[in-house]
Amino acid sequence: MSEHLYSYQQLASFTEKVFKSIGCSDEHAATATKTLLSADLRGIDSHGIARLSGYVRLWEAKRVNATPVIKIIHETPSTAVVDGDSGLGLVVAPFAMQIAIEKAKQVGTGWVSVQHSNHFGIAGYHAMMALEHDMIGMAMTNASPLVAPTFSIDKMLGTNPICVAAPAGKEPAFVADLATTTAANGKLEILQRKNADTPDGWVQDVEGNPTNDANILKKGGALLPLGGDREHGSHKGYALGAVVDIFSALLSGANYAPWVPPFPAYVPMPAQQPGKGIGHFLGAMRVDAFRPADEFKAAMDHWIQGFRSARTVPGEEKVLVPGDPEREFEAERKRNGIPLLQAVVTDLATLADRFSINFH
Amino acid sequence: MSEHLYSYQQLASFTEKVFKSIGCSDEHAATATKTLLSADLRGIDSHGIARLSGYVRLWEAKRVNATPVIKIIHETPSTAVVDGDSGLGLVVAPFAMQIAIEKAKQVGTGWVSVQHSNHFGIAGYHAMMALEHDMIGMAMTNASPLVAPTFSIDKMLGTNPICVAAPAGKEPAFVADLATTTAANGKLEILQRKNADTPDGWVQDVEGNPTNDANILKKGGALLPLGGDREHGSHKGYALGAVVDIFSALLSGANYAPWVPPFPAYVPMPAQQPGKGIGHFLGAMRVDAFRPADEFKAAMDHWIQGFRSARTVPGEEKVLVPGDPEREFEAERKRNGIPLLQAVVTDLATLADRFSINFH
Repeated sequence: MSEHLYSYQQLASFTEKVFKSIGCSDEHAATATKTLLSADLRGIDSHGIARLSGYVRLWEAKRVNATPVIKIIHETPSTAVVDGDSGLGLVVAPFAMQIAIEKAKQVGTGWVSVQHSNHFGIAGYHAMMALEHDMIGMAMTNASPLVAPTFSIDKMLGTNPICVAAPAGKEPAFVADLATTTAANGKLEILQRKNADTPDGWVQDVEGNPTNDANILKKGGALLPLGGDREHGSHKGYALGAVVDIFSALLSGANYAPWVPPFPAYVPMPAQQPGKGIGHFLGAMRVDAFRPADEFKAAMDHWIQGFRSARTVPGEEKVLVPGDPEREFEAERKRNGIPLLQAVVTDLATLADRFSINFH
Repeated sequence: MSEHLYSYQQLASFTEKVFKSIGCSDEHAATATKTLLSADLRGIDSHGIARLSGYVRLWEAKRVNATPVIKIIHETPSTAVVDGDSGLGLVVAPFAMQIAIEKAKQVGTGWVSVQHSNHFGIAGYHAMMALEHDMIGMAMTNASPLVAPTFSIDKMLGTNPICVAAPAGKEPAFVADLATTTAANGKLEILQRKNADTPDGWVQDVEGNPTNDANILKKGGALLPLGGDREHGSHKGYALGAVVDIFSALLSGANYAPWVPPFPAYVPMPAQQPGKGIGHFLGAMRVDAFRPADEFKAAMDHWIQGFRSARTVPGEEKVLVPGDPEREFEAERKRNGIPLLQAVVTDLATLADRFSINFH
């Protein structure tokens, strides 16, 4: 597959113009762009600019409101519920995370559950907003049902990611950003392009039987929770995905379980809608609400150095600390540019035509 | 293996006397007993009365203080750090959870990180303390290193469990209580008794190679993080175990990573001790800090009923909701008694002799 390299600035300038073209304010377009492209910088290509046309189609289908009035509908000193007014999650989630941070400044921690939102890009972007304030950040979101719980044929949960980001001192921050499935959809797409089978424990077919078919989702199959099967702890991955759903949607009043709206605009909305839009959950904990930040960060450095110096199993070069791979991608791509597949370039060219924007 | 049935009251009366015999106050002995035996009731036999003699040995080795002065050493409106004064985690963790609950009453949520503690039994007991207050409860703890991170030979983390408990309305509460490993130690012990191999992805040997030897921990091997290997997402299980360590120990000033004190008193303490004792993290979120509790609980009922009515894969009877198996154990054992293996009965008889307590 041919790939093309683009500078961050090229892609950001284009993306911002697209968001403005659908009616976003300058401020929202800038925020949405920064959130979306953080995925491309960090090597999570499935969640970045490759999805830009998907967001536009959601707007066309009137499932995304480009001019939302995002507001707090309930709050206490350490909590809030935010109504995203059907806006882009790329804008709604940073708004909610900022509230969590402000509450943490006041009372030590802040926790915000969000209803009536849409897909928010990568969880990592939102959680990492806390780092510059010497806070631990958390972000999670529910998503449309692709995952079958242990023993279930029916797809009841999304890939429901969790991110936890914790600041360190001299070492880079700890950033754990993970879908609660064995493998995320992006991994299946890579195998599809290679015409390769999946490992065991990634997917099941439409009748709930194990399979290694990387195209099985298109045939009614399902992703499996982290663990894969009962013997390997899939009930734990299922439980974690369920916790994400409860925090993001049951606490906020968003849709949950199999009733979460789909990302592809061509997929009909669920007939039943027990809540509003998609749900997120954002949290911030001020480190010095527990102990002096310098002490914590020195301990984090020691912790990180301990893991980095662990002996490796045969054939592996180093033990990674959560966040290492994405940070290496970011450094390399800021230096050398962001590679886009030809299919993505074609997709962006179509958007450029449609909105009369320049794209090379 | 022969098993003997005991009523909860028989075991509780005996356990309380043992805790008093090592010097615990009446109040602490009652709390420690309730916490410890909640594991036996809920079917998590590895963490219950089978460990009573282990706690006594820790006290003999002066690693447990039977008369701790447990206190808050730092706090904000929504957070606290508790010093357990080397007390039984069975007593320290409920103390800390109570603080989390009180803070949640005041400002919506409460978060308590604990240093200088010991093993706290099952995470579920502490998290579930929140339920009767219409709060979501969370509990986690670090533990001595048995788990090798992805690509590591060295054991750097404990089985670091996480529990999240959320109240429902007519349905029983949602209780997700999970070690962040593919399988917990108790599962290995069952295979050892049967002389059976482990499935793939549970353990590795002393050189970091995959193995199916259920006795491998005694030969220097390690448990593997949830996921098993990189291809099946072990970096996610590793990241979750790391988050537990950071919240429990880096925030509180407890020991972390490979430096967490061991449970067996015959295992020497780590040469390096960067913190104090074992760390826990307890949290409580008032449901009505987000939305009216009745609304939330009705939504939880709907959520739970949705999962229960999901279609099952071939050969399985029902889709479980997290907490179902433990609740069924509890109902059955309250009715019929708690079965103990002969080895455990013998162990308790030795304790009875030693402290001149009656045990049948």
